Amino acid sequence: MNAVLTPPDAMTEVARQLLGDIGAATRDGEGITRESYGPGEDRALALLEAHGRRAGLACEYDGARNLWLRLAQDTRTDAAIVIGSHVDSVPQGGNYDGLAGVVAGLCVLEGLRERWSQLPPVRVLALRGEESAWYGRAYMGSMALLGRLPPAALALRHRNGSGTLGEAMARCGADVAAIARGEPLLPQPVAAYLELHIEQGPVMVTRGWPVAAVTGIRGNVRHNRVRCLGETGHSGAVPRWLRHDAMLAVAQLLARMDEHWRVLLQMGMDLVMTSGICGTPAQSHAVSVIPGEVQFSFEVRSQDAATLERFHALMREECAAIAAERGVRFEFDDALATAPATMDEGWIRRFEAAGARLGQPVERLPSGAGHDAAVFAAAGIPSAMLFVRNDHGSHNPHEAMDIDDFAAGTRVLMAALADLANPATPE
Amino acid sequence: MNAVLTPPDAMTEVARQLLGDIGAATRDGEGITRESYGPGEDRALALLEAHGRRAGLACEYDGARNLWLRLAQDTRTDAAIVIGSHVDSVPQGGNYDGLAGVVAGLCVLEGLRERWSQLPPVRVLALRGEESAWYGRAYMGSMALLGRLPPAALALRHRNGSGTLGEAMARCGADVAAIARGEPLLPQPVAAYLELHIEQGPVMVTRGWPVAAVTGIRGNVRHNRVRCLGETGHSGAVPRWLRHDAMLAVAQLLARMDEHWRVLLQMGMDLVMTSGICGTPAQSHAVSVIPGEVQFSFEVRSQDAATLERFHALMREECAAIAAERGVRFEFDDALATAPATMDEGWIRRFEAAGARLGQPVERLPSGAGHDAAVFAAAGIPSAMLFVRNDHGSHNPHEAMDIDDFAAGTRVLMAALADLANPATPE
Repeated sequence: MNAVLTPPDAMTEVARQLLGDIGAATRDGEGITRESYGPGEDRALALLEAHGRRAGLACEYDGARNLWLRLAQDTRTDAAIVIGSHVDSVPQGGNYDGLAGVVAGLCVLEGLRERWSQLPPVRVLALRGEESAWYGRAYMGSMALLGRLPPAALALRHRNGSGTLGEAMARCGADVAAIARGEPLLPQPVAAYLELHIEQGPVMVTRGWPVAAVTGIRGNVRHNRVRCLGETGHSGAVPRWLRHDAMLAVAQLLARMDEHWRVLLQMGMDLVMTSGICGTPAQSHAVSVIPGEVQFSFEVRSQDAATLERFHALMREECAAIAAERGVRFEFDDALATAPATMDEGWIRRFEAAGARLGQPVERLPSGAGHDAAVFAAAGIPSAMLFVRNDHGSHNPHEAMDIDDFAAGTRVLMAALADLANPATPE
Repeated sequence: MNAVLTPPDAMTEVARQLLGDIGAATRDGEGITRESYGPGEDRALALLEAHGRRAGLACEYDGARNLWLRLAQDTRTDAAIVIGSHVDSVPQGGNYDGLAGVVAGLCVLEGLRERWSQLPPVRVLALRGEESAWYGRAYMGSMALLGRLPPAALALRHRNGSGTLGEAMARCGADVAAIARGEPLLPQPVAAYLELHIEQGPVMVTRGWPVAAVTGIRGNVRHNRVRCLGETGHSGAVPRWLRHDAMLAVAQLLARMDEHWRVLLQMGMDLVMTSGICGTPAQSHAVSVIPGEVQFSFEVRSQDAATLERFHALMREECAAIAAERGVRFEFDDALATAPATMDEGWIRRFEAAGARLGQPVERLPSGAGHDAAVFAAAGIPSAMLFVRNDHGSHNPHEAMDIDDFAAGTRVLMAALADLANPATPE
């Protein structure tokens, strides 16, 4: 029984190997780059598929060109338990953000191979397009799969201004017409969506927790591109009171919002704020030119929907005040909003019970980052997540997950699934 | 006599034509681009040379590949009065910043053609490389000419990261070895350097002055590239107290310096401050990534050397304070400094006297912008400048100089020179 519940060392070795191979194939000199619906993501999926075929798994792509893997003999079409995560990354990102969850799914599939017929169908789902860094929108693969990607998203342009998301999806072989019609593309019903993911914040490292169950996922409101428009001019010749310096206007805005943020945290609110992209235009800026334009992104995240809405409104009000004071103007793109999500309490308890039996404490933790699990939860599918401890955050090349922590999380996931076969059997 | 002192309408027409032709040849879609020691600048010089040859002028290049024009018959080699300005522009700049002064020189040469032998030698100098936008350093052409370009400047890289200034100079045919040795490359001694230039600030438009004499030129201290280094991280997953957000650090710095600037103006100091280039790195930034790096330029200008030095020191102190508060660090490139310059009082009086006789008031005005005249003044050459009214500032495509104001300024310049022949003759 223990052999089933614990991935053998050989399995951990396979995971390490697979993570290493895919990392090596998508290295960019600085970190890892697996573009959403682009080359690095394709390469990762091809390597997962090759591994799957060697391991006797059936590998199939859905209409949004996400990869599904299952034991070849398990052809059942009733409601499946899906273990998924994404394989794309931000530019110069890390290897584990997303990919670890897919590899964990493969380990679980392998670990439960002998008893598949006693369990509900288990499917591993390698999703595309979770990262918003490429097209300014997150969860493209999971939303397309669930028929929930707004058709306008297909027209979003790549960060370098080249093609659109729709074109990239078509190049990868996705059924863009069906996605545009909002057709659900699930190959079979989904009883639950389970995702293992590295923690992207520092909490688990700080507290010494290898594994945690996620209670909920922060929602967010973001503008990918706000333009502040002032007036260019010679940096030496225009006195202060005749300037309309877009950079100083944006600096003032960010400094004010940063201070509001500090105060609201003191008042007990859950809130993070980021301007990840901000700058003067590369094609025309110069040391001796007063900036006439600055573009910036603005993102706020919270577990509380009202906090999101109010902080966003506060930002708009500060922009209006600064525009009036400085003779600049702000142009906003449409705000994108993702509602906060709650994870399935039944599955959280299953994780905790499995952990207790394995002697592996499973703490509860909210997720600051967004995840595909929020998309499945919003579609009414019971969804749950396990976090694995990881140092140095994510979205950078220095993320550091210990393979033993990965194995601990995978063991909990596998044990929770195994319990479905004999829920009454005490260990 | 009046025919000599007043450029005839035909001359104004020639100026309009020449400005128009060079503008048309160096348009970039948005504005005017004449790269320092690059293609647009080459094109402008070629058109000036072609015009000069049609007009019977001798055209010669010095070792820094600036263009000198003179009446062909005037081969004297004693100390010359040089009427000069630059022909390069910032990217997407305007047509008149620099070029107007060269064209004014050609008008003066033509207007004084009949009496050249009664005057000291007059030379028109079309300088290269005045704008710092391309290599991060201003006055490259005039400093090379005067043997004052630091050899290290030859290794400065082009704004797009491609070649060095030395390579670009060599491509244009300059004697880079002589420039590196700091050899003065003047073809003959210079008795005075006179420069007509559009005003780059809004003062003359506001006050209704078509022509002004420049009293002095603001000096500056600048950093072309300061790096603020923090730590990247996932925008949703890192709480505020564990962030090291480089963008919020720089926003705070700029907002603080902006406030100090406001206060120091109230205290009567002469000061302008600009961060013309500022932003997160294009190759790795993303909406969902906490910025781990921001690069920015910082420039302060003042007519007072002590103010420059102290404001620069204040900026460095604020950086140190913010670094300690936020756990970021600042890396500075070498500060570049240009001392404030004083214009020659004798020439200012000649301009005023000439204007008075022409019925053209010549007001006094300091220059907020830097000019090649400051380089000549620093080399001990009596230097003076006339400003011509211009709307919408400069370093942008919307600069607007009325050709009648240009003619008024050129008339004052010509009359002041003509006075050298018969200083005692009242008009």
